[in-house]
Amino acid sequence: MNEPSPLLVDVKFDTLRKSDRFSDGIKNRRIIDLQTETDLPEIFHGVKYAVLWKPDADLFQRLPDLEVIFSAGAGVDHIMGRAGVPDLPIVRFVDPTLTNRMSEWVCLQCLMHLRQQRRYDAAQRDRIWEERPQPEASEITVGIMGLGVLGQDSARKLKALGFNVIGWSRSQKSIDGMTCFDQNNLDSFLAQTQFLVCLLPLTAETRGFFKRDIFEKLQRQDEIASPVLINAGRGGSQVESDIIACLQDGTLGAVSLDVFETEPLPESSPLWDFENAILTPHMAATSDIRALAAHVEHQIARHEQGLPLEHLVDKEAGY
Amino acid sequence: MNEPSPLLVDVKFDTLRKSDRFSDGIKNRRIIDLQTETDLPEIFHGVKYAVLWKPDADLFQRLPDLEVIFSAGAGVDHIMGRAGVPDLPIVRFVDPTLTNRMSEWVCLQCLMHLRQQRRYDAAQRDRIWEERPQPEASEITVGIMGLGVLGQDSARKLKALGFNVIGWSRSQKSIDGMTCFDQNNLDSFLAQTQFLVCLLPLTAETRGFFKRDIFEKLQRQDEIASPVLINAGRGGSQVESDIIACLQDGTLGAVSLDVFETEPLPESSPLWDFENAILTPHMAATSDIRALAAHVEHQIARHEQGLPLEHLVDKEAGY
Repeated sequence: MNEPSPLLVDVKFDTLRKSDRFSDGIKNRRIIDLQTETDLPEIFHGVKYAVLWKPDADLFQRLPDLEVIFSAGAGVDHIMGRAGVPDLPIVRFVDPTLTNRMSEWVCLQCLMHLRQQRRYDAAQRDRIWEERPQPEASEITVGIMGLGVLGQDSARKLKALGFNVIGWSRSQKSIDGMTCFDQNNLDSFLAQTQFLVCLLPLTAETRGFFKRDIFEKLQRQDEIASPVLINAGRGGSQVESDIIACLQDGTLGAVSLDVFETEPLPESSPLWDFENAILTPHMAATSDIRALAAHVEHQIARHEQGLPLEHLVDKEAGY
Repeated sequence: MNEPSPLLVDVKFDTLRKSDRFSDGIKNRRIIDLQTETDLPEIFHGVKYAVLWKPDADLFQRLPDLEVIFSAGAGVDHIMGRAGVPDLPIVRFVDPTLTNRMSEWVCLQCLMHLRQQRRYDAAQRDRIWEERPQPEASEITVGIMGLGVLGQDSARKLKALGFNVIGWSRSQKSIDGMTCFDQNNLDSFLAQTQFLVCLLPLTAETRGFFKRDIFEKLQRQDEIASPVLINAGRGGSQVESDIIACLQDGTLGAVSLDVFETEPLPESSPLWDFENAILTPHMAATSDIRALAAHVEHQIARHEQGLPLEHLVDKEAGY
């Protein structure tokens, strides 16, 4: 039996949890970690597989035997946007640990806006005991843009919490218990939506999509700060100057942003200071490294058994 | 046909939502509102029904024909604790609008503590972009004390969000998909619990129950501020001096409190200033007045048709 192909890992994010080492999940294969190893060769002969997050432009030239590219996250714009990417299958990272974290974050944001958490936070700081008029989750329609694995799981959990949930995707989908819209009826979708959740990939079509003309079409619930933009997709999809202006003039009541045009969000951004802007540092759905390792091993096994790879990127669509 | 008995309403809380007037839900019956009407008689002859929240001690002497007492909330300690309460059936308020609001609040608190919201809030104020190690909901066990309608609905929604959920009640219960504990194994329950949710009524047994010796038995998750006490039951169940001391010495990592020993919480309470104490002004499950009216009408109809009243208080148990 041949020696298993090494796995090249070039993941430019910190693994914050000590137990989450890639090598815990990959047992019978050499791991070449570009972030930690030194004395590495110029050309990686015999390396068929690579797990990547924001790879350097010249990396692919160093991988002449590459067969499969694995993204270390749900998105692939960090690879697709690079020059010199070879015409090989690209596998997205799909795993319950990532899906669940994303849904937790989306549900948390929807509940914080519903239950006016930032206003109660301010009242607490001022030692003010004052109840506010309070709609129920069933009085709020959450509109989810992007109905892949993440969007569908978020929808299921938001419905369990009592929210009215509708969805939008590029091509029409049919999902049980949920009204779905597509490109041809975006305006109807927006007109019913009070909380707009973006779980879209970054593509030529979505770049700069979330701007004033979209926000102006959303529905308002007068008792709470609304309408609300909740973006856990990609920062490139939003126009932050419009978000700031719309928060200032009331077109938007509040936002939750986990992603930004520039990351880390520059210290000079006015967004930091809005009480009704909940900001988190691109942590909504951090990849669990052990789960990523298991996913990669599973897909390599399929590939080597002649089975088709799963979660393949559609290069035409860009995600 | 006889004239329907008037309904006396003495509800000492504000109806914050303009549409939520009691008279919208009660159509064919005179409503006597003690909070807004003047020139009322000393004795209310012929009044068989009363909806009460913190009634005055002498009210029952003015209601010689009273047949049924309705609580305007899920709890009844505000009636049971009063002197001079006649030996009449007391009906608790059970309704999806109240249940759903309570579950929203409980889920919001659990998610805020899981996802370290107060720490990210502080980072945002300081314009700091820094991701934290993050457990998943499935790594946290939420222990719910009180497995009535509110506890069971919260459990169902927390499980949908991915939390591991266990429950405790005075008498052993059997609930699908959930390990239940009772009086005989409280310590085992606490030893497995990282987030302790209190939805208990205030009775002689629960008064002052949540104190240091209970907090010391809870389990810790080291990556997030824990263990956590989440109380949406009654403030009388908690010892606030112990909560403050336990937040200071780390026995408790964080708390969410909607109820307090004295309400409104006095401006002088040190609780207001803890970053890891999320305080709300007894608003977790505000009664929706229209739903309360519909519930009261439904129970009166049952009573007048000779059917048993539902949601009756067990006076021995005190709830």
